[in-house]
Amino acid sequence: MRNVICARCVKCGREYEAVPNLTNCGCGGILDIIYDYDYIKTKLTKETLANRRNPTMWRYRELLPVEETTPDTELRVGWSPLYEAPRLAKELGIRQLWIKDDGINPTASLKDRASAMAVAKAREAGAEVIACSSTGNAASSLAGNAAAAGLKTYIFVPARAPKGKVAQLMTFGATVISVQGSYEDTFELSRQAIERWGWYNRNAAINPYLSEGKKTVGLEMMEQLGWQVPDYIAISVGDGCTIAGLWKGLKDLYAIGFIDRLPRLIAVQAAGCCPINRAVEENAPWRPMEENTLADSIAVGVPRNPDKAIQAIRESKGLTVEVTDGEIMAAQKLLGTRCGVFGEPAGVTGTAGLKKLCAQGKLPPDATAVSVVTGNGLKDVANAIRACGEPISVPSDLGRLLEAFAERHIPLK
Amino acid sequence: MRNVICARCVKCGREYEAVPNLTNCGCGGILDIIYDYDYIKTKLTKETLANRRNPTMWRYRELLPVEETTPDTELRVGWSPLYEAPRLAKELGIRQLWIKDDGINPTASLKDRASAMAVAKAREAGAEVIACSSTGNAASSLAGNAAAAGLKTYIFVPARAPKGKVAQLMTFGATVISVQGSYEDTFELSRQAIERWGWYNRNAAINPYLSEGKKTVGLEMMEQLGWQVPDYIAISVGDGCTIAGLWKGLKDLYAIGFIDRLPRLIAVQAAGCCPINRAVEENAPWRPMEENTLADSIAVGVPRNPDKAIQAIRESKGLTVEVTDGEIMAAQKLLGTRCGVFGEPAGVTGTAGLKKLCAQGKLPPDATAVSVVTGNGLKDVANAIRACGEPISVPSDLGRLLEAFAERHIPLK
Repeated sequence: MRNVICARCVKCGREYEAVPNLTNCGCGGILDIIYDYDYIKTKLTKETLANRRNPTMWRYRELLPVEETTPDTELRVGWSPLYEAPRLAKELGIRQLWIKDDGINPTASLKDRASAMAVAKAREAGAEVIACSSTGNAASSLAGNAAAAGLKTYIFVPARAPKGKVAQLMTFGATVISVQGSYEDTFELSRQAIERWGWYNRNAAINPYLSEGKKTVGLEMMEQLGWQVPDYIAISVGDGCTIAGLWKGLKDLYAIGFIDRLPRLIAVQAAGCCPINRAVEENAPWRPMEENTLADSIAVGVPRNPDKAIQAIRESKGLTVEVTDGEIMAAQKLLGTRCGVFGEPAGVTGTAGLKKLCAQGKLPPDATAVSVVTGNGLKDVANAIRACGEPISVPSDLGRLLEAFAERHIPLK
Repeated sequence: MRNVICARCVKCGREYEAVPNLTNCGCGGILDIIYDYDYIKTKLTKETLANRRNPTMWRYRELLPVEETTPDTELRVGWSPLYEAPRLAKELGIRQLWIKDDGINPTASLKDRASAMAVAKAREAGAEVIACSSTGNAASSLAGNAAAAGLKTYIFVPARAPKGKVAQLMTFGATVISVQGSYEDTFELSRQAIERWGWYNRNAAINPYLSEGKKTVGLEMMEQLGWQVPDYIAISVGDGCTIAGLWKGLKDLYAIGFIDRLPRLIAVQAAGCCPINRAVEENAPWRPMEENTLADSIAVGVPRNPDKAIQAIRESKGLTVEVTDGEIMAAQKLLGTRCGVFGEPAGVTGTAGLKKLCAQGKLPPDATAVSVVTGNGLKDVANAIRACGEPISVPSDLGRLLEAFAERHIPLK
């Protein structure tokens, strides 16, 4: 990889050769991939990109830690739509707003970006099996991307994993191990099994390449905006890998001169589970929290990537905000009715936070912002049903329909 | 519309001016939009298309029945991925196979193509409200596309409609009327209400523009294949609108000289509900059937567009094949494990039929085929769960995991 210099520990600074099967530093810190931006600048220009037809995350190959000979992965991951939302911007009281709908990915979440990277690196490592422990989108995206690539997957889930996500895993042909115990028990068993059988490890807080896949969401939105940087980018935060990846992509673009300033991040967590935001707000080390939120994908009381996430929020002069489950479900409805975008609860949490900050007057009226929707609402229909209410029920009789409309003051024209 | 000559009844041949709010012919027949291909040939070339960046169905504007001034609709509908599937082709015993994954659309089904067209035509008609009756993908795609466009929707569903689909509708802000009665009762109430309030009518068997939206799936796959025509295209058939639209798109391309031959259609229905295929096979008028299949989106015993569908199958020298629910669910698993594509039951029915014909030796070994997946598996998680089995359940103990793997003869490497 001519474009990569090394991998460096974010805690102790120790450097490692960027071999395909990197895991954490000996000190326990997570590694960061260090690029040779001078070299990249000689290979990648805005014009090169503009002429590139590839509508996937692999269009940014010069900024990704893969060998030139490593093929693109099979599924069409990335280049998700960025919708301008003028009516919603007006409602929130800011100048411009865009919604990046990352639920439009092959397995319906942003995690496809990390899993595609895992498949690419597993191939470089000569691995035929990839493993991870997860209850949600990381697991299903790995299973789908690996199936398309002809690789096997072993996926460890806690017994409480939602049936729908298990169905996705089984349909993609993963070997799914349901562990009778907590998530910690699940993770521990997966750790032992991965060590024993030498499977390729897809855990975003251990494998430093994965957030390099996630960063493509940031590269894309800037290209889609014609390299005009918004003032803010709002995104939900769980274990911290996604916001850290987003920030890395933005810094990459700044380093090669594609953008001339950096936006401020808006880190949104659930009020019932916000250890990363709390650490930023208190300017203190993070401490574990309970996981009291229905937004399961960000219900992470013991974040596995707090260091990179906290650093990203601080470096960007970011804002933090916590939202209740009620505010999350209101944001789901808001995005559905105003933009035709159906996000899962964790997926719309970024928008919920943005809305809350606007209502508190924390954003100037001439602000511009992007809100990232990280997963599709079809992933979690149960919560949507609880939130969205019941339809009007009538017999097949126009008179009764008229009465029902009148009772509910439904305007007809 | 310079590119459109008129709308012509497929039954009696009567011609109508192509106004935006066309419905059926006075004789009850459905209308077909007639184009001026000589004019279109002066406006659209393969080179024009190749240089067009628009990754949506609107890239084919010259072949679509909209005014030049009508804006593209808001959501990114169309340009779904076409995946080559060499391993699956080998397994089925044909030379080449591609999977067109139309579940990667904003509301996760092919129906987004028809609903985007409905939104465009409603705008031309000056309408602010669109209505339809449907239990499934047509409804949710209309609700999503209309919400993004700032249009209201009134959607009539039978009381038995699956909760998940109702949740999508409510999240998109549709006014949903749940009718206590059969689908016929539901349709009848919607007909009366649409007449009474003058709402724009989105029913694919009544509004002739909608299959013009659906045809873009055919235009796209040909462009994605570099205008090399496959021998066969397999697709599931319910009310007949989708296969009719697909065929229309292919004939358009033939008429303007973009392709030099036409493929044969493979029309796949559920064994428990196959009135269109039965009519083709018996060379007799279609007769109603019961709706005995779990593939709800194609459980249509009284098809609303049989004429265009039967004509399409016959014109293409098409094949018909019926598959059991077991064969449908096996195809779901096959697409998941071999291609990383998760389709809903009706969505994978085309692949189930293709597989069955291959097993019966009905396709030559040098055949090439495209199989269209019409909707995402997340639309119907319940059936996937029933079909895909249970994960391995163990405590967090490596010894017990070893035993479990050994019992199931799971290979480890």
